[in-house]
Amino acid sequence: MDIDRLREVLEGVKNQAVSVDAALETLKDLPYHDMGFAKLDMHRHLRTGVPEVIFCQGKTVEQVVAIAKRLTQDHHNIMATRATQDMADRVIAEIGDAEYHELARVIVVKPAPLPEKVGKIAVVCAGTADLPVAEEAAIVAETLGNYVEKFYDVGVAGIHRLLHQRQNIAQANAIITVAGMEGALASVVAGLMDKPVIAVPTSVGYGASFHGLSALLTMLNSCAPGISVVNIDNGFGAGYQAHLINHLSGKRQ
Amino acid sequence: MDIDRLREVLEGVKNQAVSVDAALETLKDLPYHDMGFAKLDMHRHLRTGVPEVIFCQGKTVEQVVAIAKRLTQDHHNIMATRATQDMADRVIAEIGDAEYHELARVIVVKPAPLPEKVGKIAVVCAGTADLPVAEEAAIVAETLGNYVEKFYDVGVAGIHRLLHQRQNIAQANAIITVAGMEGALASVVAGLMDKPVIAVPTSVGYGASFHGLSALLTMLNSCAPGISVVNIDNGFGAGYQAHLINHLSGKRQ
Amino acid sequence: MDIDRLREVLEGVKNQAVSVDAALETLKDLPYHDMGFAKLDMHRHLRTGVPEVIFCQGKTVEQVVAIAKRLTQDHHNIMATRATQDMADRVIAEIGDAEYHELARVIVVKPAPLPEKVGKIAVVCAGTADLPVAEEAAIVAETLGNYVEKFYDVGVAGIHRLLHQRQNIAQANAIITVAGMEGALASVVAGLMDKPVIAVPTSVGYGASFHGLSALLTMLNSCAPGISVVNIDNGFGAGYQAHLINHLSGKRQ
Amino acid sequence: MDIDRLREVLEGVKNQAVSVDAALETLKDLPYHDMGFAKLDMHRHLRTGVPEVIFCQGKTVEQVVAIAKRLTQDHHNIMATRATQDMADRVIAEIGDAEYHELARVIVVKPAPLPEKVGKIAVVCAGTADLPVAEEAAIVAETLGNYVEKFYDVGVAGIHRLLHQRQNIAQANAIITVAGMEGALASVVAGLMDKPVIAVPTSVGYGASFHGLSALLTMLNSCAPGISVVNIDNGFGAGYQAHLINHLSGKRQ
Amino acid sequence: MDIDRLREVLEGVKNQAVSVDAALETLKDLPYHDMGFAKLDMHRHLRTGVPEVIFCQGKTVEQVVAIAKRLTQDHHNIMATRATQDMADRVIAEIGDAEYHELARVIVVKPAPLPEKVGKIAVVCAGTADLPVAEEAAIVAETLGNYVEKFYDVGVAGIHRLLHQRQNIAQANAIITVAGMEGALASVVAGLMDKPVIAVPTSVGYGASFHGLSALLTMLNSCAPGISVVNIDNGFGAGYQAHLINHLSGKRQ
Amino acid sequence: MDIDRLREVLEGVKNQAVSVDAALETLKDLPYHDMGFAKLDMHRHLRTGVPEVIFCQGKTVEQVVAIAKRLTQDHHNIMATRATQDMADRVIAEIGDAEYHELARVIVVKPAPLPEKVGKIAVVCAGTADLPVAEEAAIVAETLGNYVEKFYDVGVAGIHRLLHQRQNIAQANAIITVAGMEGALASVVAGLMDKPVIAVPTSVGYGASFHGLSALLTMLNSCAPGISVVNIDNGFGAGYQAHLINHLSGKRQ
Amino acid sequence: MDIDRLREVLEGVKNQAVSVDAALETLKDLPYHDMGFAKLDMHRHLRTGVPEVIFCQGKTVEQVVAIAKRLTQDHHNIMATRATQDMADRVIAEIGDAEYHELARVIVVKPAPLPEKVGKIAVVCAGTADLPVAEEAAIVAETLGNYVEKFYDVGVAGIHRLLHQRQNIAQANAIITVAGMEGALASVVAGLMDKPVIAVPTSVGYGASFHGLSALLTMLNSCAPGISVVNIDNGFGAGYQAHLINHLSGKRQ
Amino acid sequence: MDIDRLREVLEGVKNQAVSVDAALETLKDLPYHDMGFAKLDMHRHLRTGVPEVIFCQGKTVEQVVAIAKRLTQDHHNIMATRATQDMADRVIAEIGDAEYHELARVIVVKPAPLPEKVGKIAVVCAGTADLPVAEEAAIVAETLGNYVEKFYDVGVAGIHRLLHQRQNIAQANAIITVAGMEGALASVVAGLMDKPVIAVPTSVGYGASFHGLSALLTMLNSCAPGISVVNIDNGFGAGYQAHLINHLSGKRQ
Repeated sequence: MDIDRLREVLEGVKNQAVSVDAALETLKDLPYHDMGFAKLDMHRHLRTGVPEVIFCQGKTVEQVVAIAKRLTQDHHNIMATRATQDMADRVIAEIGDAEYHELARVIVVKPAPLPEKVGKIAVVCAGTADLPVAEEAAIVAETLGNYVEKFYDVGVAGIHRLLHQRQNIAQANAIITVAGMEGALASVVAGLMDKPVIAVPTSVGYGASFHGLSALLTMLNSCAPGISVVNIDNGFGAGYQAHLINHLSGKRQ
Repeated sequence: MDIDRLREVLEGVKNQAVSVDAALETLKDLPYHDMGFAKLDMHRHLRTGVPEVIFCQGKTVEQVVAIAKRLTQDHHNIMATRATQDMADRVIAEIGDAEYHELARVIVVKPAPLPEKVGKIAVVCAGTADLPVAEEAAIVAETLGNYVEKFYDVGVAGIHRLLHQRQNIAQANAIITVAGMEGALASVVAGLMDKPVIAVPTSVGYGASFHGLSALLTMLNSCAPGISVVNIDNGFGAGYQAHLINHLSGKRQ
Repeated sequence: MDIDRLREVLEGVKNQAVSVDAALETLKDLPYHDMGFAKLDMHRHLRTGVPEVIFCQGKTVEQVVAIAKRLTQDHHNIMATRATQDMADRVIAEIGDAEYHELARVIVVKPAPLPEKVGKIAVVCAGTADLPVAEEAAIVAETLGNYVEKFYDVGVAGIHRLLHQRQNIAQANAIITVAGMEGALASVVAGLMDKPVIAVPTSVGYGASFHGLSALLTMLNSCAPGISVVNIDNGFGAGYQAHLINHLSGKRQ
Repeated sequence: MDIDRLREVLEGVKNQAVSVDAALETLKDLPYHDMGFAKLDMHRHLRTGVPEVIFCQGKTVEQVVAIAKRLTQDHHNIMATRATQDMADRVIAEIGDAEYHELARVIVVKPAPLPEKVGKIAVVCAGTADLPVAEEAAIVAETLGNYVEKFYDVGVAGIHRLLHQRQNIAQANAIITVAGMEGALASVVAGLMDKPVIAVPTSVGYGASFHGLSALLTMLNSCAPGISVVNIDNGFGAGYQAHLINHLSGKRQ
Repeated sequence: MDIDRLREVLEGVKNQAVSVDAALETLKDLPYHDMGFAKLDMHRHLRTGVPEVIFCQGKTVEQVVAIAKRLTQDHHNIMATRATQDMADRVIAEIGDAEYHELARVIVVKPAPLPEKVGKIAVVCAGTADLPVAEEAAIVAETLGNYVEKFYDVGVAGIHRLLHQRQNIAQANAIITVAGMEGALASVVAGLMDKPVIAVPTSVGYGASFHGLSALLTMLNSCAPGISVVNIDNGFGAGYQAHLINHLSGKRQ
Repeated sequence: MDIDRLREVLEGVKNQAVSVDAALETLKDLPYHDMGFAKLDMHRHLRTGVPEVIFCQGKTVEQVVAIAKRLTQDHHNIMATRATQDMADRVIAEIGDAEYHELARVIVVKPAPLPEKVGKIAVVCAGTADLPVAEEAAIVAETLGNYVEKFYDVGVAGIHRLLHQRQNIAQANAIITVAGMEGALASVVAGLMDKPVIAVPTSVGYGASFHGLSALLTMLNSCAPGISVVNIDNGFGAGYQAHLINHLSGKRQ
Repeated sequence: MDIDRLREVLEGVKNQAVSVDAALETLKDLPYHDMGFAKLDMHRHLRTGVPEVIFCQGKTVEQVVAIAKRLTQDHHNIMATRATQDMADRVIAEIGDAEYHELARVIVVKPAPLPEKVGKIAVVCAGTADLPVAEEAAIVAETLGNYVEKFYDVGVAGIHRLLHQRQNIAQANAIITVAGMEGALASVVAGLMDKPVIAVPTSVGYGASFHGLSALLTMLNSCAPGISVVNIDNGFGAGYQAHLINHLSGKRQ
Repeated sequence: MDIDRLREVLEGVKNQAVSVDAALETLKDLPYHDMGFAKLDMHRHLRTGVPEVIFCQGKTVEQVVAIAKRLTQDHHNIMATRATQDMADRVIAEIGDAEYHELARVIVVKPAPLPEKVGKIAVVCAGTADLPVAEEAAIVAETLGNYVEKFYDVGVAGIHRLLHQRQNIAQANAIITVAGMEGALASVVAGLMDKPVIAVPTSVGYGASFHGLSALLTMLNSCAPGISVVNIDNGFGAGYQAHLINHLSGKRQ
């Protein structure tokens, strides 16, 4: 593609249809288009409605609203993660076409239709306190165009609940497991299923959980194959990664 | 399937074709088959030739040879990772049908044909010293039945080499990035591609690399979406996870 | 037992007393009953009144009340740990039959009689600031049906106070030692007694206590035999483990 | 007892049968006997044959032999842990009445009969590389006078093997679980059983296992109740703690 | 002394002046008096007015007041460290004879005269933010009966200020150095002086100071001899240790 | 210079123009002048207007105002970093000639003209949340007399934005890169430019960023040459270091 | 420059002097030249003889020799750091024109003249055991074309030695300070000098030096301005960074 | 003293007995003598025979011998710590007048008589494996001129042995406690004695002892007052600090 465009410009120069200065101006930016914007373009054409993402943590309400406004001017859908109720109230008041998923702390602004859902992602969660992270993963995956099935409160301390759901979980293309404390859930799930498991350690716990470090190390050291890990409490990252995986196979369904 | 088999046994009992004791003997193991062996069965039928895995680190040469012999009696293929030259020599001498990938430290014993290769996995590697881990990932993925393309020596200190290969890498269904020291490669790759990236930190480095901790943290904290991480030096884990992902889409190719 | 039940079903099928479909329905859940609920059943029959446990930290007042209500509908006793005064007020107001141990932060809801107390557990505590953790251990152990004797303010900086109580402590079946700062108490106690010591590090301290890490490491590295350790501030875990130990011998008393 | 002895001395003084100086000499050491040796005495009388323990790591072969010789002069049995083959060869050559458990790295010297075995301790072990630690725990427990049953190679990646043995394991008075890497085994075992679980993290693993730290944290943060933890690779400590617990109930069997 | 008292009791028994039961009662507590209270007695006689210490952190205002009241009933002086303004207000209101050193966060209650001051302790402090810790050390040392000279704001970034005071500092019997951030002050002071240096790391700093860890490690690794270190922010510990050292030589002055 | 001054004094003594006592008084302070104040003098003469610096964190509003007042009495310019709005309000009210850079948290008090700007320093910043640190670096460098060009929002997740600005950045004498999370920006910048890069990790991030530790390690382990690192969030340090570097070459422009 | 070259090609196309295909071939690589090789080109022209760098650690002798041979085919000078004696012997034997700096572990291969030396870099080193790192920094800086003056054995424990050299050190454009253990040297040097200080922590030390972590933290937390830090033992990085700084001002001399 | 010497020189100049150039030469080094060498001088005069110290770790045999030779040329006594048998053999062969304390790893070279011993330092040691560190402390203290009494094998697991020696230990002016593993000894000793305790953590232990970190933290967090701590395994530092303390009071004896 780039080669074709390059040849076209050169032929124009050869034919005197394009001045050297105009060609120079065009060629000067070639590497950058080639590199960055092309990717964005592709996105826009291939998967209509895929939202832009704003990571709200560390931003003021004003900053979030301003960025959201700028993006919606171009009719982009938006997914704002780690958003507070305040941010949601302001975005909904000033932009509209938006809803706030309180537990997941995600604002979805959708002036355009969201992408159609395909395939299936399972979100498996150990405890009640881990739910905000699990919900962030689930909402992110759904908003990006994936069917999501949730399996909550299936921690390893009562393993029969997990085993009971084993076959349902195994039908997903990607499995997100969310757990704090000792985080053993990911190993048990990956030992039972033959699908890629995205493990999300949470900061739930106390004492020697060291704000999620314990669960993180557990998941990284899992003796079961087929696990990879995202940052502590990174529900967004797990949802996004699972979305990429699910879309590889999603067209089959 | 299990339900069908269960019904079959029960019909046999009903019809007096199966004695209660025989049925009892069969049913006694049901839960475990249902849970564990069923999964193995499925493997065996769906993907002929998929090898069993032996993790050799911490085992003696004798133990590795003994396990390998036992498995090959059932004509299983075997993949022995973290294997020393000594282990390889002994396994090849006593079992045959085997080859040793020295850089990757992997022995592949294949009394039966390996599974056919499908799809494409890219293995992107930062530096020469990271190659053993990258090769482990590549050999594991190939042996499990995946086409693998390698992009070596493309560290961020000379980013043009990576950019040059950008479009080739982007054609893979899953991208494994292997990097030690500061491990920035994974972020840059994920920022450029729209495919799931499995990041492998390596223990390459010194001083404040803390045996791979620095690269591990870098990858976990990546601001680019689409990355998940495996343990330090865990080429096997990355290869296996990429294999699961690639096979989701592999049938399309 | 399970085998007997299984034979009974099969005989029923053989005798046409049970249809294949009904047998199928019964057998489908066998593994899970076998695994999980059986254990709960056993509890309920062997030790009447043993409470269910709610870990309140990270839950809202509403969630705690809702869970407590659901459990008391089945006339279960409840022990809610890490409960705030707010939670206690709401639970007492809406359920009744409850009391709040403020220092221990434990709510006990007991629509049914609690289990009878047996044996003896000693709770040995170093300093005033460690008392909430010691009290959590003591209340948990008492509520689960154990006699508890408390030995408070016996830190190693004034070792004569501990030595004075030596023979009383030694009469317990299990000894819980609770200490923050340098946590040396556990080693000294285990050096003097010939009973299992459950050591609980607390987050009491400052500076290089690193929120309990120092006490935790001290206890894990104890050169005195007979110590095992629970998480920092985990009074509940120590009380529960001591309860299991004390009940092994409890019937003798 | 001590009070009786004290009264006896005082009566002797009163009756002029004991001089003040002789009484003084006797009383001078009272506190220390009262404190330390009394305990040892009690051991010797109550449980004949219980061995003294030598921790060999960090000692020279000469030191180990010298300590062993000195102890056997009083016909004590000895258990020498973390002993090398060299140490064993020398001890056997110079003292005799000894055997070396190679995998467990334990020398047992027994000029007198070992204590009779009672009760039951289960040793549950995740992987082949964890066996030396599991064996240390098992040999220590057996030598201290406990029946031990071993359940090896039951890691969580193939959870059906553990479930298959569930009822056998549950019959023990104390359960030792030994696991490296992510150490999830302890949580799963404690979730299934209603007996005290002593968890032993091992240094087996690589990368982010940080020489056993990962397994240690997993076990400390277990969400299943009834677990307490010993130091990394501390098979001796687990065996000793389980022995204390098992002997509480052992007399019943 | 104890031997004398013991002989006295025995002679009483011999002479029938003391009954065996009375002697028994007296002797029963001997070991503990011998061990603990004897030490306290000695204190009380040798150094009149030496205060008891209350560590207020982690205690409620009520607890601090209660302990202070109990101690002053016996006319003990009291030093309450890490005390808040609230605690001070209440103690002063309810007990009197007290003053609050606000910067040092120390309450001194002195119903009796404080011990006379001897010798000299130098308190050397790096920065303004370290002053509360330096003041705690100084007030503690003064209240325990030591002359204290303060050398504040002499950090290594402007080393001439320290060098200017070198000879004054060197006249002290013990030198307390207080520094946060990189904590290099202790090394420089110990390199210049030939007196014992007690180094106090403070939690002053940000980022990679990790709440005082950086200064702590600096001081522990000092290449200058003659330094020993107390916990982060432990002004009390430094003041107390310097007091013990100064009193060894104090009588000479 | 010092030697000249010393000779001058000695000649005065020789010529009886200076008494021995007066010479003594002069010489007594020589080492300290030689060491410390000389440096300050040099500053004052060579670079008129260079401000004194107050690090406000950990100081009270009163302390900051008092120090600022004292310094401005000598007509010094002042740069107060980590200043709160409160501090700024009070300083401006009581001293005047001051302005507050809110985002950078820096107060500049300038009774005298600031030093003239020379050369060029580039401040390259990854994300919006890193801006306060980047602004601190920029304001500090500008106030010390350096031209500063800012390149904000050029994180590695969208690398084309950085590449687009490559040639502008490369014209600076020193490049400050500010990044939190995984901090990969510094490596990419140093790989592209041939100028000294001062890397500033920020505490921006969550989970395994461990308050900036991840970015710090990334930058320390960079495989690109030409990077050195300052403390987490230390915008001041980076601005000052870049200022020293820029002034080495600044005279050329 | 690149723009000029681009115009030249386009003019050639316009004038038919260059075919479209030939132009295409030339332009295809433009972005990468523009990005990466251009930088290398510039080097080659501006500073003749500047060597390529090989980081030998983690490479085999064969790999180092192979890379060195390939580079010298183009008459590049080479600097191979962290090289063993073995590597040096082989490189010297097979390539020649090389010398090995044993203490610094650096091989310099110079088929062409090295760049001329300019300016001055000071290398200040605390202890004998730190010398290999200091020498690596010095050799690297010299080989890159900088005058280097060494100030060794000037640790803070004997601060007069450092003060004695103060004025000589202050004449450098950049100061490299190398120190292990507590690493306080960097703070003292930066407090005395007004030049950029590049601090290199070394892994020299034991116990709580944690392989250089202590010195690293000390340097990062320095309260003296003008310090930036490289990785533990990274003499190369310090030498390179100082070289970049020194060359900014080098032309003045 | 310095002032007197300065006056003397000035009077010489005034009286023309000293030329300005000669005076200049003399005065040039004044500050450094004043600062550093003066201190050394004082040592030499006040305490004849006090040895210079060489820290051998990280030095080659050749370097140690060379330094030792140079120092003995001036008839200095030498104490070489962390010395290997090889170093000792070479030093004894080439210098003579030396002996090697093998367990302590200290060479003492004494061409002149060592300083007379005064006072008393107690060295209290927990376990056999800690002896090298305890011996280093003891030999260092003895060689510096202190009476040392050793109390070995008095760990807290058998606390009666420590209590038995309590009164002997309490007679020392300074108490060095050496312990690895959990390091609880220091707290118990300081709780019993009223003398300054220098605590030395050792690297003895395994697993979560983290090479001495556990014992270090225990000692830093001790709840008993009167403890300060030196680096892990730093027997030298403890011996030196105790020597400084003992000499404060030593003259009294």
